[in-house]
Amino acid sequence: MSEKRVTRLSRKLGASPGELIPVGIERDHTVHVSVFDYDAGGHCDVWEPAKLEEVVPLKETKTVSWINVDGIHEVPVIERLGQLFDIHPLILEDILHAGQRPKMEDLGKNLYIVLKMLTPGPGKSGVEWEQLSMIVGENFLLTFQEKPGGDFFDPVRERIRQDRGRIRKCGPDYLAHALIDVVVDNYFVVLEDIGDKVEALEDEIMAHPARDSLQKINHLKRGTLALRRAAWPLREVISSLQRSESALVTKDTQPYLKDVYDHTIQIMDTVDSFRDILGGMVEIYMSTLSNKMNEVMKMLTMIATVFIPLTFVVGVYGMNFDHMPELRWRWGYPLVMLVMALCAGGMLYYFRRKKWIE
Amino acid sequence: MSEKRVTRLSRKLGASPGELIPVGIERDHTVHVSVFDYDAGGHCDVWEPAKLEEVVPLKETKTVSWINVDGIHEVPVIERLGQLFDIHPLILEDILHAGQRPKMEDLGKNLYIVLKMLTPGPGKSGVEWEQLSMIVGENFLLTFQEKPGGDFFDPVRERIRQDRGRIRKCGPDYLAHALIDVVVDNYFVVLEDIGDKVEALEDEIMAHPARDSLQKINHLKRGTLALRRAAWPLREVISSLQRSESALVTKDTQPYLKDVYDHTIQIMDTVDSFRDILGGMVEIYMSTLSNKMNEVMKMLTMIATVFIPLTFVVGVYGMNFDHMPELRWRWGYPLVMLVMALCAGGMLYYFRRKKWIE
Amino acid sequence: MSEKRVTRLSRKLGASPGELIPVGIERDHTVHVSVFDYDAGGHCDVWEPAKLEEVVPLKETKTVSWINVDGIHEVPVIERLGQLFDIHPLILEDILHAGQRPKMEDLGKNLYIVLKMLTPGPGKSGVEWEQLSMIVGENFLLTFQEKPGGDFFDPVRERIRQDRGRIRKCGPDYLAHALIDVVVDNYFVVLEDIGDKVEALEDEIMAHPARDSLQKINHLKRGTLALRRAAWPLREVISSLQRSESALVTKDTQPYLKDVYDHTIQIMDTVDSFRDILGGMVEIYMSTLSNKMNEVMKMLTMIATVFIPLTFVVGVYGMNFDHMPELRWRWGYPLVMLVMALCAGGMLYYFRRKKWIE
Amino acid sequence: MSEKRVTRLSRKLGASPGELIPVGIERDHTVHVSVFDYDAGGHCDVWEPAKLEEVVPLKETKTVSWINVDGIHEVPVIERLGQLFDIHPLILEDILHAGQRPKMEDLGKNLYIVLKMLTPGPGKSGVEWEQLSMIVGENFLLTFQEKPGGDFFDPVRERIRQDRGRIRKCGPDYLAHALIDVVVDNYFVVLEDIGDKVEALEDEIMAHPARDSLQKINHLKRGTLALRRAAWPLREVISSLQRSESALVTKDTQPYLKDVYDHTIQIMDTVDSFRDILGGMVEIYMSTLSNKMNEVMKMLTMIATVFIPLTFVVGVYGMNFDHMPELRWRWGYPLVMLVMALCAGGMLYYFRRKKWIE
Amino acid sequence: MSEKRVTRLSRKLGASPGELIPVGIERDHTVHVSVFDYDAGGHCDVWEPAKLEEVVPLKETKTVSWINVDGIHEVPVIERLGQLFDIHPLILEDILHAGQRPKMEDLGKNLYIVLKMLTPGPGKSGVEWEQLSMIVGENFLLTFQEKPGGDFFDPVRERIRQDRGRIRKCGPDYLAHALIDVVVDNYFVVLEDIGDKVEALEDEIMAHPARDSLQKINHLKRGTLALRRAAWPLREVISSLQRSESALVTKDTQPYLKDVYDHTIQIMDTVDSFRDILGGMVEIYMSTLSNKMNEVMKMLTMIATVFIPLTFVVGVYGMNFDHMPELRWRWGYPLVMLVMALCAGGMLYYFRRKKWIE
Repeated sequence: MSEKRVTRLSRKLGASPGELIPVGIERDHTVHVSVFDYDAGGHCDVWEPAKLEEVVPLKETKTVSWINVDGIHEVPVIERLGQLFDIHPLILEDILHAGQRPKMEDLGKNLYIVLKMLTPGPGKSGVEWEQLSMIVGENFLLTFQEKPGGDFFDPVRERIRQDRGRIRKCGPDYLAHALIDVVVDNYFVVLEDIGDKVEALEDEIMAHPARDSLQKINHLKRGTLALRRAAWPLREVISSLQRSESALVTKDTQPYLKDVYDHTIQIMDTVDSFRDILGGMVEIYMSTLSNKMNEVMKMLTMIATVFIPLTFVVGVYGMNFDHMPELRWRWGYPLVMLVMALCAGGMLYYFRRKKWIE
Repeated sequence: MSEKRVTRLSRKLGASPGELIPVGIERDHTVHVSVFDYDAGGHCDVWEPAKLEEVVPLKETKTVSWINVDGIHEVPVIERLGQLFDIHPLILEDILHAGQRPKMEDLGKNLYIVLKMLTPGPGKSGVEWEQLSMIVGENFLLTFQEKPGGDFFDPVRERIRQDRGRIRKCGPDYLAHALIDVVVDNYFVVLEDIGDKVEALEDEIMAHPARDSLQKINHLKRGTLALRRAAWPLREVISSLQRSESALVTKDTQPYLKDVYDHTIQIMDTVDSFRDILGGMVEIYMSTLSNKMNEVMKMLTMIATVFIPLTFVVGVYGMNFDHMPELRWRWGYPLVMLVMALCAGGMLYYFRRKKWIE
Repeated sequence: MSEKRVTRLSRKLGASPGELIPVGIERDHTVHVSVFDYDAGGHCDVWEPAKLEEVVPLKETKTVSWINVDGIHEVPVIERLGQLFDIHPLILEDILHAGQRPKMEDLGKNLYIVLKMLTPGPGKSGVEWEQLSMIVGENFLLTFQEKPGGDFFDPVRERIRQDRGRIRKCGPDYLAHALIDVVVDNYFVVLEDIGDKVEALEDEIMAHPARDSLQKINHLKRGTLALRRAAWPLREVISSLQRSESALVTKDTQPYLKDVYDHTIQIMDTVDSFRDILGGMVEIYMSTLSNKMNEVMKMLTMIATVFIPLTFVVGVYGMNFDHMPELRWRWGYPLVMLVMALCAGGMLYYFRRKKWIE
Repeated sequence: MSEKRVTRLSRKLGASPGELIPVGIERDHTVHVSVFDYDAGGHCDVWEPAKLEEVVPLKETKTVSWINVDGIHEVPVIERLGQLFDIHPLILEDILHAGQRPKMEDLGKNLYIVLKMLTPGPGKSGVEWEQLSMIVGENFLLTFQEKPGGDFFDPVRERIRQDRGRIRKCGPDYLAHALIDVVVDNYFVVLEDIGDKVEALEDEIMAHPARDSLQKINHLKRGTLALRRAAWPLREVISSLQRSESALVTKDTQPYLKDVYDHTIQIMDTVDSFRDILGGMVEIYMSTLSNKMNEVMKMLTMIATVFIPLTFVVGVYGMNFDHMPELRWRWGYPLVMLVMALCAGGMLYYFRRKKWIE
Repeated sequence: MSEKRVTRLSRKLGASPGELIPVGIERDHTVHVSVFDYDAGGHCDVWEPAKLEEVVPLKETKTVSWINVDGIHEVPVIERLGQLFDIHPLILEDILHAGQRPKMEDLGKNLYIVLKMLTPGPGKSGVEWEQLSMIVGENFLLTFQEKPGGDFFDPVRERIRQDRGRIRKCGPDYLAHALIDVVVDNYFVVLEDIGDKVEALEDEIMAHPARDSLQKINHLKRGTLALRRAAWPLREVISSLQRSESALVTKDTQPYLKDVYDHTIQIMDTVDSFRDILGGMVEIYMSTLSNKMNEVMKMLTMIATVFIPLTFVVGVYGMNFDHMPELRWRWGYPLVMLVMALCAGGMLYYFRRKKWIE
C-alpha cells in the first residue's frame, strides 16, 4: 500500500544522497544470487556463485549472462555488485529503495530499468507488489528482485535451458524484454482477479447489498489504481526503450517491445473500464439503500394508515358518556365492526392501486 | 465483455512471443476461406480454395485478390497463410489473439490493420464485438474474422460482382477502405440501437422508475464505452493510414479515408452526448426515489397528524374517573364529536394550504 | 436531437461512398434556388433561375455570385449543381447528409465549409438545428440550406442590395464570412433563450421545486451541449480558414474572421458557465428535497412526541382495575388534565428551543 | 453576470461588422476624457480636453501621453478618437462591446489590450466587472473604461504626479503594465472578499446550516468562476505581451510583466483551492441534512418505541371482559405500573447503550 | 492557509513594483544571519556576522559561502543584502512576499529559486508552510527563510562540518540541491502524517462515523492540496534547473537533481492516491448515514407494526356496547391474549425472514 511506502521512506531523512540504506524492504531473508550464462551455440551454464567475485569474468565474455539477485536487504551484497559492475551510487540507492516509480535511465554503458511486479494478494487493494530493477549491459543482465522467494520467471528459465524460441539467439536486451513481457502478462492475471471480484461484487450488490459492499468497491478501486500506477509509467519505459538510440537495444528486439507496449495499452483500457464499472456500482449501491428505505417506509405507512383510524373508531365507543345511543343498539357492535372492515378494505385497495402491494 | 477478454488471456502466460496459441476465440467451428479475384477489366473470380496453396499465385498476379478467412481458431491454417504470405510471427500472434486494440502497423511490404466489428447483441453492454484483421499487400487483401458465420460485407461483395462504383477500378487499399467503411456504418447501427434504448429508458424512469433502471443505465453506459473503445483508436488508425507515406495507400483513396474519419468523429460526438444524457438520467432516477419517499412520508404524516390527537381526545373520555362532569352532560357526546370533526377539518385545510393534497 | 440523426443514418448502410442518398433531411418541400450577382460597381442582380443551367455562366464572370439552395431533398438538383460546378461526389454526399460535424476542407479550386444554424425551438433541448453547406469559389459562393423556408440571412441580403458596408467591395470569402457571422450571432440568440430559461428555472427551484424541475435542468443541459457541439468545431473551422494558405481567403477578410473567432470563444465561455450553474442547480434541487423531507419528519415527530405519551396517560386511567384510588379522588380528573397540559407545554418549549418551530 | 451580457448582445443581430453600436454598456452618464502628459524630465501636464481634437498633437510629441476615456456609451466620441488615432473599425467595435474576453492584438503600429476590472459587489456572484480597453502606441496610451465614475488607478496617477518609482522614466508600455498590475492587485481584493465569505459560510454550515446555504455556496462558486474567467485569459495576454516581438514592449518592462504573470498564476491557484473547498462544503451541507434527519428519526423512534408497547398494555387492562382476574387483585394496578416502568427503563438503557442518548 | 495569504496581500495595493514591503510574514522576531564558508580543502568556517558588510568579501573568495537569513521581516536587512549582492528589486520583492509559487528564474549572474518548506502542523489542513528563497551565485548561496526559528537543515550542516559525502567537494549548486533534497524529504514526512490520519479516519468512519468526520476528510484533502501545490511547481523548478544552460548548474549535479525530480513525482503519485482514497471515504460516510437511518427506521417500523394492530384489538374489547357477547364468555380474555400473541409471533417471524432481525 501507498501508506507503507511513505512510512518507511522517512527513516532516511537527512542522509546524503548515495548513502546506501535499504528502504521499504523485507529484512528477514538472505540474499540469493543465481547465474544463467548462455550463447547461441550449445553453451548454457546455470549456477549459484559462492562468492560475488565469481561473476566478474562474465562481464568480459561474449556469452550472455543473467545474474539474478533475489532480495535487496543485504546492502553490502548490492554495494559490492555495484562496484564490480561499475554502477553509479544513485542507481544503487534506487535499487535499494523499494518505492521507485517505473522508469528507464540510459547510463551510457548500460541501461537501468525499474518496474513493479504485481500479484493478486491479500490486503486492502488485493494487489501485492514487488520491485524489479534491471541493469542491461552489453553482454550481461543484472536483475534485482525486492523480495526473496519465488518469482514468475521460470518459463523464461525453461526457454533458455531448452533453447526454445529466439531467446538463446539474442542478447541481453531480448532477455530483458522477455522478463518485462512476463511481468506484463502477470498484470493480466491481476486484472482477471480484479475482474472476477468486480463481477462477484456486482451480483452481491444487486441481490444483498451488505454494509461493507461500498468498502469492497473502494478496495477494488485501489487495486485498479495500483495497476494503473504500475502500468502507466511502464508504458513510457517501454516506449523510451523502443525509441532509445542506445546501441544496447538492437533493432530486432524493437518489434517485440512494440508488442509489450500494446499490451500495456490494453491493460490501461481495461483498468479504465473497470473504474467506470466500479463508479456505476457506487451509484447502484446508494440507490439500493434508498430503495430499501422506501420499502420500510411503505410498510410502516400501510400499517399505520390502516390501523390508526380504526383505533380512533374503537376509542370513540370506549368513551364513557352517559348518553351514547349507539352503545345501546342491538346491532351497534357488528355494525361498527363491519364499517371498520370496509375502511380497512378500502385502504388496502387504494394501496394496491398505487402499486405498494404486489 | 472486458472481463472475458482478460480471463482468456492469462492462459498464454509464459509462452514465448511468436508462439501461436489462439487466445479468446470461439473454437467449435471450422475455418472457412473464400477468395475474390478481380481487376478493372471484366475479370472477376469468386471461389473457395480447397487447399491453402491455391491462393499463392494470387500474390504475383496483377489482379486484386481478397482472401477472407472466417474464424481464427485453427492455428495451422493461419500459420500456413502467414508462411505463404511472409507475415511476421508477432503479427500472426496478434491476429490469433482476439483482444487487440484497433491499430495500424506499417510492415514495409504490407500494412497490418486490426479493428472491431460491433453489432447490437445480448449481454450486459448490449454490444457484441468481433475482431477483424487485415493485411493490405500490393495486390492482395487478407482479412481474418474472429468468429465464423455471417458478416456484413455482402454489400461490398455485391459491388465487386456487379462492378458498381469505383471498387473494381481501384486497388486493395480502396477495398480495405470499403470494408472499414461498412464496419463504421455498422457502428451507427449500434448507436441507433443504444439511442432507442436510451429513449425508452428515459420514458420509463420518468413514469415508473423500476428497481433495475439504474442497472439498465449502467449497461447502456457500458455499451457506449464499448463503442468508444472501438471507435476512438480506429480514428487514429484511419488518420495514420491517411498520413501514411506507404506506397500501398494511393492518393485517390485518401479523400475516402477522410470521409470515414469524419464518421468516426461523429460517432464519438454522439457517444459523448449519450454519456451526458445517461449521467443526467442517474440524477433523475435518484431524485425520483427521494420524491417517492417524500410522498410516502407525507401520507403517513397526514394520517398520523389527523388521528393521533383525536385518539387522545377519545382516550380522555374513556377514563374512569368518578368525577368527570362532561360525561354526564346531555350533549357531551355530540359536542366532542363536533370538536373532533372541526380539528380534523382544520388539519386538512392546513395540509391543502401547504400543497400536500392536490 | 442526436438520436434522430443516428436513426436516419443507418438507412444508407452498405451503399458505396459517393452514391447520393439524402440522409436525415425533410422531404416534403421543393428545392428553391436563388441568385445574387453583384460587383463593387453598381451591378446587382437578384433572381431565381428557372433552370439550373442558367447559373453556369456565373462561374466565369468577374462578378461575385451567391447561389443559395434552400432544401437538399431533391438529389438530382444537388447532383446537377455538383456537375456544373465540378464538385467531388464525396462533398456532394456530405452536403446531402444532414448530420455533418462543422468542418472546412480545402479542395484546391474551392473551399468546402459546413456548419450548423441554431434557433431556439421546441423539443427536449430547446434548440433546433439546420445544416448549412458552403462552396467558396474564386468568384462564386454556393450555399445549401438543409431545410426549406426562412433563414436569417435577410440582413446580409439587404446589405448587398443597399451596398452598405464593405460587402459589395469584397469577394465571396467576405460574403461567406458575413453569413458565418450571422450564424454565430444567432448562437447568441440561442444563448439568451437558454439564459432566460436558466434564470426562470433557478427561481422556480428555490421557490417551488417541481417534480420535473430536474428534467428541465437536463433539457437545458442538452441545449448547451447542442450549442457546444455547434460552436466548438466551428471555432476550428474559422481558425483553419484564417490560417489557410488558400488564395481564396484574402488578407483583408482575415481580421473579420478573427472577430468571429473571438465570438465563438465567448460562446464557449458562456456555455461553460451555464453548465456550471446547471450543475449547481441539481445540487440545490436535491437538497431542497432533503429539506422538505426533514420538515415533514419534524412535523410528524412533533405530533407523535406530544400526543403518544398523553395517550398513554389517558390509557392508564381507562384501565378497569378495582383498586385505583386516583379514580375516586375529587380532583383526580382536573389534576391529570393539568399534568398532561404541562407535559405538552414542556415538549413544545423543547421544540422551540431546538428551533423546530419558528 | 453572464446572462446579462448575452441579453444585450443580440440587439446587434445582423449589423455589418464594423458598424459601431455600443453593446452591453451603461447609458445614463456622459463620457469623461482626461489626459496625463509627462516625460522623464520635469514635464507633467494633467488636463481634461474640452475638444477631442486637442489630444491629436500628443500623437507626435516625444512625451508619454495617457488619454483615459471614462465611459464608452457615446459612440461619436469613440469613433472620432478612432479616426484621430487611426484605429481599425473592428477594434473600435470591440471597445464598444463590453463583453470581450481578455485578449491582446498586435496591430503593427500599436497594441490592443482588453481586460476585466473586478471589484467586490452585490449580485449573485458577489463580483462586479468592468471592461478596460487599452491602445498602446509608440508614445501614447489610450484607455477606455466601460463604466464612468471612479476607478482604482489613483495610486498610479499619484506615482506619475510625484515622480515616484520608474514610471516617469519609462514609456507607455510600462504605464500599461502599471495599470494591469493595479487591476491584478484588485483581483486579490476580490479573492480576499470571497475568502472571507467562504470562511464565514464554512462556520455557518457547521453550526446552523440554513436553507439557502447551498445557494450561497453556488454564488461563491460563480464569483470564483468570474475571477477565473478574468484571470485565465489575462495570463495569456500578459504572456503574449512578454514574448511579443513588437518594438512597443521594451526589454526593461519584461521582468515587470513576468511579475504580473506570476501574480495571475497565484490567483488561479487560489481560485482552484477555493473551488475545492466549496466542493467539500456542498458535501458537508448534504451530510448535515442527513445527520439532522437521523436525529429527528431517532427521537421519533425512541418516543414511539417506549410508549407504543405501554399503551398496548394499558389498553389490555381497559378491556371490558367479565372474567379478567387481574383486575380484581388488590395489587394489580401498582404491579402493572411497575412492570411498565421496568419496560420503559429497559428501553432507555438499550438506547443509551446504542449511543442514541448522550 | 490560502485565505491568509490573500488577506495580507491586499495591504500592498497600489504600491509601485519594486517597493519593498514585507507581505504575509511573521513580524515579532529578529532576523538572524549565519554563514558557512568552506572549500574542498580543510577550510570550514562557521560564524554569525555582526554586521552585514562582513559577508561581502565572501562574494569574491574561491570558497563556497552559504549565507542563511532566518526571517524576512526586517526589510532593511534584506534590502542591504540585495544591494551588497546586486539583486534586482523585483526579486527582493518576491523574497519579502511570502506567498510565492515555487519557481526558478535564471538571472544571468545567479539563479533565483523559491520553494515551500512543509511541516505537519495544527490548523485546518494539518500542514504548515514556510517560504524558502535561494540565490545561487558562482561561489555563494544566499538562503532566506520566511519564519525565524528552527529549520531542518541540520543534517546538511553536519555533513559540511564533518566533510561527509560529496558536499565539501562541490559548488553552491550541489549545496542548493542538498537543501532542496532535505525539503523534499520532509514532504514525505508530511505525507506520512497525512497517511496516518487517513488510515485512522478510515477506521473511525467504518466503526463510529462522527458528525465531523466529513470535515476531517475535507481538512485532509486540503493537506494533500497544500502538498500538491508545493510539489507540483517544484517539479518544474527542478526540471528547469536540470535542463538549464546556466553555467551555475554543473554537469555533476544533474543526476542528483534527477533523483530529487523522481522524488517529487513519487509525492504527486501518493498525493493522487490519497485524494482517491479520501473521495471514496466521502461515499462511505454518506452511505453509513443512510445505513444508520435504515436501521432506525427498521426498528420503528417493527415496533409499530407489531403493536399498532394489537392496540386496535384491545381497543375493540374496550368498547362499551351493551351487546358484545365475547365479553361475557368465560375464556374470552385468554383467547384474545392468545390470538394477539400469535399475531405478534407471526410478525416477528416475518421480520426474521426478511432479515431485519439477526
